[in-house]
Amino acid sequence: MTAPTRERIVTEAMRLFSTKGFEATSVSQIEAAAGLSPGSGALYRHFASKEALLSAGIDRQLDRRAAMHDIRALFAGLGDLRSELTVLGRYLLTVIDQELQVLQIAARTPAGLSPRLDAAYAALVDGLTAELSDWITAWGPSLAKRHCAVLATLGVNGILGARIATSLFRESAAGIPDDEYLAEWTAVLAARIESRPQ
Amino acid sequence: MTAPTRERIVTEAMRLFSTKGFEATSVSQIEAAAGLSPGSGALYRHFASKEALLSAGIDRQLDRRAAMHDIRALFAGLGDLRSELTVLGRYLLTVIDQELQVLQIAARTPAGLSPRLDAAYAALVDGLTAELSDWITAWGPSLAKRHCAVLATLGVNGILGARIATSLFRESAAGIPDDEYLAEWTAVLAARIESRPQ
Repeated sequence: MTAPTRERIVTEAMRLFSTKGFEATSVSQIEAAAGLSPGSGALYRHFASKEALLSAGIDRQLDRRAAMHDIRALFAGLGDLRSELTVLGRYLLTVIDQELQVLQIAARTPAGLSPRLDAAYAALVDGLTAELSDWITAWGPSLAKRHCAVLATLGVNGILGARIATSLFRESAAGIPDDEYLAEWTAVLAARIESRPQ
Repeated sequence: MTAPTRERIVTEAMRLFSTKGFEATSVSQIEAAAGLSPGSGALYRHFASKEALLSAGIDRQLDRRAAMHDIRALFAGLGDLRSELTVLGRYLLTVIDQELQVLQIAARTPAGLSPRLDAAYAALVDGLTAELSDWITAWGPSLAKRHCAVLATLGVNGILGARIATSLFRESAAGIPDDEYLAEWTAVLAARIESRPQ
């Protein structure tokens, strides 16, 4: 029975961290949410500290992300700029949706409180930016490497900003469906790559 | 002496709200930060509740934003698509920088806790998107209104995402200077507007 309890603690802790932030979530609250006696310290039979618990949650998320990463091979070499970019945009949005809980925890926890969290956030954003940048470089070999990196950053920010605006913050009036937004995202990046800037 | 104390309470409350979130900040903590006796209830001589205090902070921010809004008239009619877009991009970034505290409070406070905060966030994002959308419509009269709105949303998300990535979350490795990022943002939007899509 140890494994399910441990699993439940991680799940409830990550949910509370993402809603309230790491700092504002107490061990008692996590115990209560996981069905343990609040304030009993029962959590410490499984985790040495709140920080260790956050690390376990991030590890679990990284495992899931590793599974997702393999999916990228599916769309390699479609041979058409817009087709590949469309799939790449959907991929970025899917990864960010899967990582939304970690992004919410990062947003609701001051930087510097958890080096593990800071590193996980940087790895996620930098990783996605590098993937998009590599793809742009392959399609636009005449573009300077730096230019591909800046365009990739803009592309990832466009996807990240969309999800942050609706999921992390409040729903705004815009409410554009994902398909429509991604179609525009694809058209914008494609037009820029094809414009062959200096 | 009432006015300065009141001002100080608002300033310290907004700072604490943006760091810890609205929910996790106590009246005692605000009193301590504002130089009042913590736990004395001295804050209530100035504000009926924490919610009223947040409203006052948002009001103060809206006053500042109104002053900024007039600045837009300065760049109207430059007559060159890229020049106007460059200034518009700088304007959006400046507004978002000025509103960073409200954005941080919104990010660190669950939606639904403060209708006033939710409304202020929606007004900010929807307002900036409408301004950019109006500008795109004026430059590309052949573009469908809906298309201008989607492109404007992407443009605002690109700016919002950039600031969120560095200021709200942690600094990532990218670290692209504002000027370079805005130049690419301008080029991307300009290329799309000039491509005259159906």
